[in-house]
Amino acid sequence: MALIVQKYGGTSVGDIKRIENVAEMVQAAHDAGNQIVVVVSAMSGETNRLIDLAKQISEQPEPREYDVLVSTGEQVTIALLSMALNRRGCPARSYTGSQVHILTDSAHTKARILDIDESRIREDLKKGRVVVVAGFQGRDEHGNITTLGRGGSDTTAVALAAALKADECQIYTDVDGVYTTDPRVVSNARRLDRITFEEMLEMASLGSKVLQIRSVEFAGKYNVPLRVLSSFEPGGGTLITYEDENMEQPVISGIAFNRDEAKLTILGVPDQPGVAFNILGPIGQANIEVDMIIQNVAQDATTDFTFTVHRNDYEKARTVLEKTAKELGAREVKGDKSIVKISVVGVGMRSHAGVASTMFEALARENINIQMISTSEIKISVVVDEKYLELGVRTLHDAFKLEQASAA
Amino acid sequence: MALIVQKYGGTSVGDIKRIENVAEMVQAAHDAGNQIVVVVSAMSGETNRLIDLAKQISEQPEPREYDVLVSTGEQVTIALLSMALNRRGCPARSYTGSQVHILTDSAHTKARILDIDESRIREDLKKGRVVVVAGFQGRDEHGNITTLGRGGSDTTAVALAAALKADECQIYTDVDGVYTTDPRVVSNARRLDRITFEEMLEMASLGSKVLQIRSVEFAGKYNVPLRVLSSFEPGGGTLITYEDENMEQPVISGIAFNRDEAKLTILGVPDQPGVAFNILGPIGQANIEVDMIIQNVAQDATTDFTFTVHRNDYEKARTVLEKTAKELGAREVKGDKSIVKISVVGVGMRSHAGVASTMFEALARENINIQMISTSEIKISVVVDEKYLELGVRTLHDAFKLEQASAA
Repeated sequence: MALIVQKYGGTSVGDIKRIENVAEMVQAAHDAGNQIVVVVSAMSGETNRLIDLAKQISEQPEPREYDVLVSTGEQVTIALLSMALNRRGCPARSYTGSQVHILTDSAHTKARILDIDESRIREDLKKGRVVVVAGFQGRDEHGNITTLGRGGSDTTAVALAAALKADECQIYTDVDGVYTTDPRVVSNARRLDRITFEEMLEMASLGSKVLQIRSVEFAGKYNVPLRVLSSFEPGGGTLITYEDENMEQPVISGIAFNRDEAKLTILGVPDQPGVAFNILGPIGQANIEVDMIIQNVAQDATTDFTFTVHRNDYEKARTVLEKTAKELGAREVKGDKSIVKISVVGVGMRSHAGVASTMFEALARENINIQMISTSEIKISVVVDEKYLELGVRTLHDAFKLEQASAA
Repeated sequence: MALIVQKYGGTSVGDIKRIENVAEMVQAAHDAGNQIVVVVSAMSGETNRLIDLAKQISEQPEPREYDVLVSTGEQVTIALLSMALNRRGCPARSYTGSQVHILTDSAHTKARILDIDESRIREDLKKGRVVVVAGFQGRDEHGNITTLGRGGSDTTAVALAAALKADECQIYTDVDGVYTTDPRVVSNARRLDRITFEEMLEMASLGSKVLQIRSVEFAGKYNVPLRVLSSFEPGGGTLITYEDENMEQPVISGIAFNRDEAKLTILGVPDQPGVAFNILGPIGQANIEVDMIIQNVAQDATTDFTFTVHRNDYEKARTVLEKTAKELGAREVKGDKSIVKISVVGVGMRSHAGVASTMFEALARENINIQMISTSEIKISVVVDEKYLELGVRTLHDAFKLEQASAA
């Protein structure tokens, strides 16, 4: 008998028929002899409907009241799912975040979970009941209703799994797992049976948006085995776990890409200590997040400095940078919005040499010019002209033989 | 400075514009130097929308989960009203029934309030905040969400007023007060400035459905001054209070009527002890509520027995009664659905003789035949043919000079 936390998102509970479908899946897992805790989001569209009501009153509604408002979305779903389970003869009880004491800080609309008192849930599980918990919400120490911010239901599920020491936390979505890359770009992209937390973090932050990054971090921190699977199609999904030493590790797990970035370069900056801070300080103050940062060795007492930002922030960042360039006596500012970042990700590259050369060789063979390179322990990212996105991803997918299971 | 509890029903908060209108009224009362607690219902239509979702899953949804579901309706309204107040610069905080510890029994969908911990509300009031509380809901001793049943927001308001020892509990509705009778029947019906709890109970149960009976009973029990007024039109409304000895009391406060009843008579029942129980026992077991009951003095060792039921229960009651008639050896069962009950109500009749004779004389003058008569300390009801409804009510309204204020 396993203790499993299942999480179903807004699309999976989007209407009564889908709620019945979820009830069927929950009942099957329960009837198979497992203890089941279910976390659900608001029915798709409901949160937007509520936000729209608030916006009619105020462009910036009181955060405390905003949380009271939007938290009703999940409360509706837990009640309906519990009704559906009970009607099927599967005993179930619903709880709001407050009721199961999901204690958070008081940062309304983006609260963080501090503690969970799981005793009430355990009592129900012992009595053979399925426990249905509202995702995305909790209460602060004063009893005020808080929300974890949009998509926070994944975090609720992982936090509950950690508190209950669950055997597995299953995240049901509209995709059936994590792929070696986007199947819309590479038709023979393969679903991974397993992936490590670290790889998943790199994949997620690089554009394969299957799971909320925070929930993966959380799962990694508390070592909660996380499984991504589809609520519409059968299948084992992808298990996200710690690296297992006995696990035969492929060198590369997947190819991620991101087409939302833009590149900015400041040329001929007098090279002196603090130059990076002088350039990026004003960018940070303007609330612009920077992704890749590259500074080459100085030539002739000047240096070139390149970084990428989200494409939406490009104009703003360029204005800030041009002001900085004048102040620092730099020669020129250049920018490019037609770029794409492609990354190969894999914990296996730690112990395998030659990943970088395989990557660069494959891209060179297709005459794809590399504009920037950045590396971390388990990934290598390159920036190329956006017109090479599909060709680049396919080339790398082939070069690392990702269409084959357990590529060594 | 007065402490006032205001309650706004579903129609008064039916859309964002109306919520803004309520916010304006609340702010005005607050700016006038009063401490204000506001109780609100769900936006009109919202409770039905939620019930409809539940019915798609089950004809008889789990009562516990039903309460979790429908209680979201009021939660949405408290958040929106608080946002509207805050945006106007009127500091406000919303609370669900659970959050302000409206403790109820565990009778889901029709729970009764046991206790209220008003300390949190008092804290906010001291800080100059308007406190907005979700009506119709509470929590039981285990922390489960409960609802008081439909329309229970009035009860919440009165219970809060009692717990806070409020100076007044104001119920805002779509009528501007309690009238001497239905203005649609008698055009010169007059709005009463005040009425006693007892009279209000008789008026409400007899068909002038302005307030929930339970909330009036509750207000009477805890001596909470209750005021009914309109959320759409200005005006002082009607104050419902205990009888004031110094108050110049009119003999009759109003004329109530009820066209939803039907009459059943069992004739020639052998007169013996227990006959009333033998007749009404089976009716009660069939879950049929009985209103008026009349038994005349026995003649020739047999008696006639008449009672009224809701018109919807007429056929069912008649079937039960015919079975009973056979068992008891009664002569005949008769019934009539085309009746109406008209009542004169007033605490003043206690100290004034001649009310009954004025009433009967007025009806006789118009040739209205009285079929049944029943009296209580503060009302006299007659059953007449339904075709006499308008004539009867107008005649009595004139006979007791109700169009004039403070008729002696």
